[in-house]
Amino acid sequence: MTAVKDSVHDYISLDPVAAELVDTPEFQRLRHIKQLSTVRLVYPSASHTRFEHSLGVYHLASRALSHLGIDGDRAAHVRAAALLHDIGHGPYGHQTEDLIRRRTGRDHDEIHHLLDGTAVGDVLDAHGLDPGRVATLVAGDSGLGQLVSGELDVDRMDYLVRDAHHTGVPYGTIDHGRLVRELRYRDGKVVLAEGNVQTAESLLLARALMNGTVYRHHVSRIAGAMLERASERLVDDAVSLDEFVRMADHDLLVALGDHVPELGRRIECRNLYKRAVWAPIDAVSTDVVELDYEASRAAEREIADVAGVSPVSVIVDAPSRPRIKESRSRVVVNGVVRRLEDASELVGALRAAERTQWRLGVYAPESVRDEVAAAAIDVLDVPTRVTTHA
Amino acid sequence: MTAVKDSVHDYISLDPVAAELVDTPEFQRLRHIKQLSTVRLVYPSASHTRFEHSLGVYHLASRALSHLGIDGDRAAHVRAAALLHDIGHGPYGHQTEDLIRRRTGRDHDEIHHLLDGTAVGDVLDAHGLDPGRVATLVAGDSGLGQLVSGELDVDRMDYLVRDAHHTGVPYGTIDHGRLVRELRYRDGKVVLAEGNVQTAESLLLARALMNGTVYRHHVSRIAGAMLERASERLVDDAVSLDEFVRMADHDLLVALGDHVPELGRRIECRNLYKRAVWAPIDAVSTDVVELDYEASRAAEREIADVAGVSPVSVIVDAPSRPRIKESRSRVVVNGVVRRLEDASELVGALRAAERTQWRLGVYAPESVRDEVAAAAIDVLDVPTRVTTHA
Amino acid sequence: MTAVKDSVHDYISLDPVAAELVDTPEFQRLRHIKQLSTVRLVYPSASHTRFEHSLGVYHLASRALSHLGIDGDRAAHVRAAALLHDIGHGPYGHQTEDLIRRRTGRDHDEIHHLLDGTAVGDVLDAHGLDPGRVATLVAGDSGLGQLVSGELDVDRMDYLVRDAHHTGVPYGTIDHGRLVRELRYRDGKVVLAEGNVQTAESLLLARALMNGTVYRHHVSRIAGAMLERASERLVDDAVSLDEFVRMADHDLLVALGDHVPELGRRIECRNLYKRAVWAPIDAVSTDVVELDYEASRAAEREIADVAGVSPVSVIVDAPSRPRIKESRSRVVVNGVVRRLEDASELVGALRAAERTQWRLGVYAPESVRDEVAAAAIDVLDVPTRVTTHA
Amino acid sequence: MTAVKDSVHDYISLDPVAAELVDTPEFQRLRHIKQLSTVRLVYPSASHTRFEHSLGVYHLASRALSHLGIDGDRAAHVRAAALLHDIGHGPYGHQTEDLIRRRTGRDHDEIHHLLDGTAVGDVLDAHGLDPGRVATLVAGDSGLGQLVSGELDVDRMDYLVRDAHHTGVPYGTIDHGRLVRELRYRDGKVVLAEGNVQTAESLLLARALMNGTVYRHHVSRIAGAMLERASERLVDDAVSLDEFVRMADHDLLVALGDHVPELGRRIECRNLYKRAVWAPIDAVSTDVVELDYEASRAAEREIADVAGVSPVSVIVDAPSRPRIKESRSRVVVNGVVRRLEDASELVGALRAAERTQWRLGVYAPESVRDEVAAAAIDVLDVPTRVTTHA
Repeated sequence: MTAVKDSVHDYISLDPVAAELVDTPEFQRLRHIKQLSTVRLVYPSASHTRFEHSLGVYHLASRALSHLGIDGDRAAHVRAAALLHDIGHGPYGHQTEDLIRRRTGRDHDEIHHLLDGTAVGDVLDAHGLDPGRVATLVAGDSGLGQLVSGELDVDRMDYLVRDAHHTGVPYGTIDHGRLVRELRYRDGKVVLAEGNVQTAESLLLARALMNGTVYRHHVSRIAGAMLERASERLVDDAVSLDEFVRMADHDLLVALGDHVPELGRRIECRNLYKRAVWAPIDAVSTDVVELDYEASRAAEREIADVAGVSPVSVIVDAPSRPRIKESRSRVVVNGVVRRLEDASELVGALRAAERTQWRLGVYAPESVRDEVAAAAIDVLDVPTRVTTHA
Repeated sequence: MTAVKDSVHDYISLDPVAAELVDTPEFQRLRHIKQLSTVRLVYPSASHTRFEHSLGVYHLASRALSHLGIDGDRAAHVRAAALLHDIGHGPYGHQTEDLIRRRTGRDHDEIHHLLDGTAVGDVLDAHGLDPGRVATLVAGDSGLGQLVSGELDVDRMDYLVRDAHHTGVPYGTIDHGRLVRELRYRDGKVVLAEGNVQTAESLLLARALMNGTVYRHHVSRIAGAMLERASERLVDDAVSLDEFVRMADHDLLVALGDHVPELGRRIECRNLYKRAVWAPIDAVSTDVVELDYEASRAAEREIADVAGVSPVSVIVDAPSRPRIKESRSRVVVNGVVRRLEDASELVGALRAAERTQWRLGVYAPESVRDEVAAAAIDVLDVPTRVTTHA
Repeated sequence: MTAVKDSVHDYISLDPVAAELVDTPEFQRLRHIKQLSTVRLVYPSASHTRFEHSLGVYHLASRALSHLGIDGDRAAHVRAAALLHDIGHGPYGHQTEDLIRRRTGRDHDEIHHLLDGTAVGDVLDAHGLDPGRVATLVAGDSGLGQLVSGELDVDRMDYLVRDAHHTGVPYGTIDHGRLVRELRYRDGKVVLAEGNVQTAESLLLARALMNGTVYRHHVSRIAGAMLERASERLVDDAVSLDEFVRMADHDLLVALGDHVPELGRRIECRNLYKRAVWAPIDAVSTDVVELDYEASRAAEREIADVAGVSPVSVIVDAPSRPRIKESRSRVVVNGVVRRLEDASELVGALRAAERTQWRLGVYAPESVRDEVAAAAIDVLDVPTRVTTHA
Repeated sequence: MTAVKDSVHDYISLDPVAAELVDTPEFQRLRHIKQLSTVRLVYPSASHTRFEHSLGVYHLASRALSHLGIDGDRAAHVRAAALLHDIGHGPYGHQTEDLIRRRTGRDHDEIHHLLDGTAVGDVLDAHGLDPGRVATLVAGDSGLGQLVSGELDVDRMDYLVRDAHHTGVPYGTIDHGRLVRELRYRDGKVVLAEGNVQTAESLLLARALMNGTVYRHHVSRIAGAMLERASERLVDDAVSLDEFVRMADHDLLVALGDHVPELGRRIECRNLYKRAVWAPIDAVSTDVVELDYEASRAAEREIADVAGVSPVSVIVDAPSRPRIKESRSRVVVNGVVRRLEDASELVGALRAAERTQWRLGVYAPESVRDEVAAAAIDVLDVPTRVTTHA
């Protein structure tokens, strides 16, 4: 059996279908998409890719299926879905996801179109697997698809541990061995066995700590926002949407350098915008908390106008309200399947804690930061620039 | 400079005072006191000792002092206190702490008597350090003593990481590098610098998860309760209190085997009592939650009597209500020093979560478990034996 | 399936036979025998036990059998042998092995007598396993017994990684995942598959580096020699041989403190003898290199006499010539099974390197070190005390 | 003090000069040059960069200087050199080094031209450091430059551990803590203190094992050779040499896809050439072992001609004879500084072992592998294609 050495799970054995899927161009492309996009501008060791992550998810799915006693055709489809779950990502992964969704209506976990008439689709066909069924498993929370994408999915288990390994931030080192062993499949739901409320909480807590320290670090948010604006200009001006979604990280970085150099070169050299405004949720109006895409762009234009700077010099970054998907994971408590949020005191507190970590960001080049700050305070009605760090 | 290889912190450099302190019999005795007493009956790799832990605490204290810019005489006393903070432990550490406190009035962090006329005291004297000052630092939360024993002490930072390393349970792997770097000393208080609410929370969360999974695992609690009862019999019947407090683990294990074999041999071979009753806080009356030492012993006798078994066959284990010491750690938030419990939504939730993890245990040999369960339900007015696991 | 958390291999699943064997007193005793006896006087974190090591060996054996496609009855016997391979050890493991061999003629891997009429034997019987066959597998290099004790056994794979984890010395971190996957069973021989000369070498090199740095560190050798001499006096004077072989570490440490305090207390407090002579192989005569047990004791008495000190104050430690068992491991090269020593240039060099690391030691209390050194130089005809460290 | 979190060394504190150097475009470019170029086609987790490696080398240099008691101006220059030692690399690091040397006469450690009139040079100037002196330290083995580039340099110490961490292959996990502590500076030479022959050997052995398993894995060699040929075509046909040397990995990957797609696309999708010939040193003539660049290219053309395939379909890869630079590292033995090769039996054996690992490779697309093999056997006078793997 083919095996791949992984720095997190050691050897990963590949079944024959997986071994062939790995060799397709669609999967090899994942070698060139970093798992954490702009996070490595903060944590330099975090250059790992969706290629190795996908192998890790496949590995944990295989082990979970084995512990659940599921094999044969059902297991084969789930394993393929686990392996392929990220091939729908655009360049820089989550960082271009909103842009692609706005323009195509497609989320990254919608991969039906990538399994039809492609090398990946051919491999599935040749092994008697149904591409449509695989795509449905990738997209959905139903049935065993929950293992791939759900409140207790192995995707999250892999990325937490892997991101911890590569960033050096230990908070993500959950006990995936225990999580995988304690999974049960009851009435069509993936749940954790009796005695595992704390196991479920640990997953929630690990992600909450990684969120604050890693995933939403302000430097990564700034670079990410710059990358998203630059990508929009690229798609508007220079490359087709079709071409864009097929790009990998290196393609995008070069294209931005060529076509949107005022942002592209800055990202490449980590010469980033600075925070002109950094405001907690209680310091801003509800309107600002709920700024949508169009409104944010309009605000940017208005701020630029007031500040007398180029529109490209202002970025308004109003994140959506935080959700805690894991809070709906299921655990058996005294023989009854319960939602974690009903069984754990921590879920509510984490929701509140997430709220206190929310920040409105307005970013600008250092040279015009003060002007942009003044204009933004005015336009967005923020009491002050509130530069205190999260 | 002398250096010791440690499996957690790699090389630990010892200053000349530390190098001599390490060679004293009082400190060498810590080689023979396991850090986690009976936990290794659950996690077999957890055989680490207070010797290596004490070196680790010394190491982190040295680094913290260096980051705080504190050196000279003050630092020398703190480093000595860090190294010596555990020499007051009896055999099996925390497991005999209550017994020793009841009989001597002394806590394990009261070490004045161990620095007077001992090799340790001589070393301190010879290097111009004041033993009394060292003992006060070990005991107390005041001033730099907080680094050794306080809400943000390096004791906790070391044991969480070390216990994780040795048990294999990852929850304790906090970011001690960050914690040590972010410490500040303000107005006589050890606090965390701005931007570290989550850093403080991570410490709290790590301990909460380790509590449930490791420190209060029911098997370890059972063995610990057996050890405590056996030790009492030993002190009552066979060895003097003076002799007892000076014992190390191997001395106690042999003495129990010789003098209290009905419990001692069981502990040695992990032939443990089983849970006859295991009841959450809401299933028992306030009286039971607050059972003190005398009342617990009386209950044991009564249960044994009702069940018709020997008193040694019943152990009532009603833990004290959980406290979360770290909740009072201090963090700078927007320039102001605040208690974590006032700055974090999580503290309250953790308190509640700790409450749900509380369990009353009644333990008995397997052969009489049913009789003891029936009697305990009757005597303690528990509705049922409630055997669901934590 | 029962699972145990291990700090090296994470969860170890136990088959039903193993789960019952683990609960026997014979196996539980291994909790109280440290894997590295006196090494922890040098590397304080190395307090791990033969209990966890035995679980690790069982785990690797299970995986190796699975990769080899061996199951059923044959596999069950090998797994049991892997688990039980160390139950024949006396207190402090290898440190009392020679003494026990001299007095009983038994090596630690001779365990037939421990499977007859014991709890372990009963468990094997109850599950239809043949105790004699298990004991033969533990003892021998034949057939699948090579997996348990042979040139490519999983015993070595586990202890190297485990000792590295617990000492903090990284040299032992071999690639056990690869070793286990590349094992083949050909014509009754356990061999490594094609392309693994370097894999085999890595095992050899890891052990060579661990030998010099850990296993044969002079402080551990001194303490070990003191322990052996003390144990002899104990058996001669105070406890029966039968009692001695059944002791665990804590029993021996207490017994030595009671009956041979002049050595026992020193070991307990790491107040060790020092090197009076430390001579490389080229500095001493062949007679000295080949000093056997009786001759060493005679030399001690003579040196003590010349030096005018008590015989207990002189220890002559002339290790046997080094052997490199792994040099005879087998690897497939160009389709042919070859001995590693015939396929690798490194084996010969390692033999020579081991020779240069050989040291004759004569140890004495610091207070009489000079006298003993002078006498030893005279009696053993060593040119000088040669105190240079290895 | 600025600190960066690293997955290998945890927090790395940057002195003020380093903090500014890190922000220059010349240094930021290292974020986009992978440490192990094509190795990640074999070990998918190995996506780490020269950016993080350079920080690691800076960190170990700082610690080594501190242990050596060297500070002030001398130390400042060495630290800067350690940080900057890799800024002279072209895209894909070592993989384009020969090409760049042939065309420019410059090695990657020749960085004088990068310190003149650049942001890096400005930072050095502003802090009173001499760019020329820094460049000389990077280039040379003299004086403290040995710490940066020499037989015992911290460059090697960092990359071995880092490559092990990121590939998952444990052989590189040397004891860098010990190595750094045991360095001494004697008569202008960096040496290891008494008692460290084995420490020096461990460095040698780690690299030998990593060479065979990682650095010279045949898949990485094939991809590397393809990349080198493709780069030559790129420089010949499409981009200037000046442009080429300033490229980072992403620039080159895109440029190859655009201008040399027949090779570039294959590298991107890991659709690699296969081994047509793979012959050990004893199977080929001395002429072939010593094939230089021109002769290799000529052989490729001749083989292509004989095989009737396009010249781009044949790659001859005759590595230079292995050298073991570490064999000349210095260790104090009995008070005298000696070369390791004179103090260790292992060095000679490793030289011989390296020789047995040498392989001539001839690579071709799978579709024409047989034709190319036949032609290569003929042209290079290899007895057979010898496809056995290393």
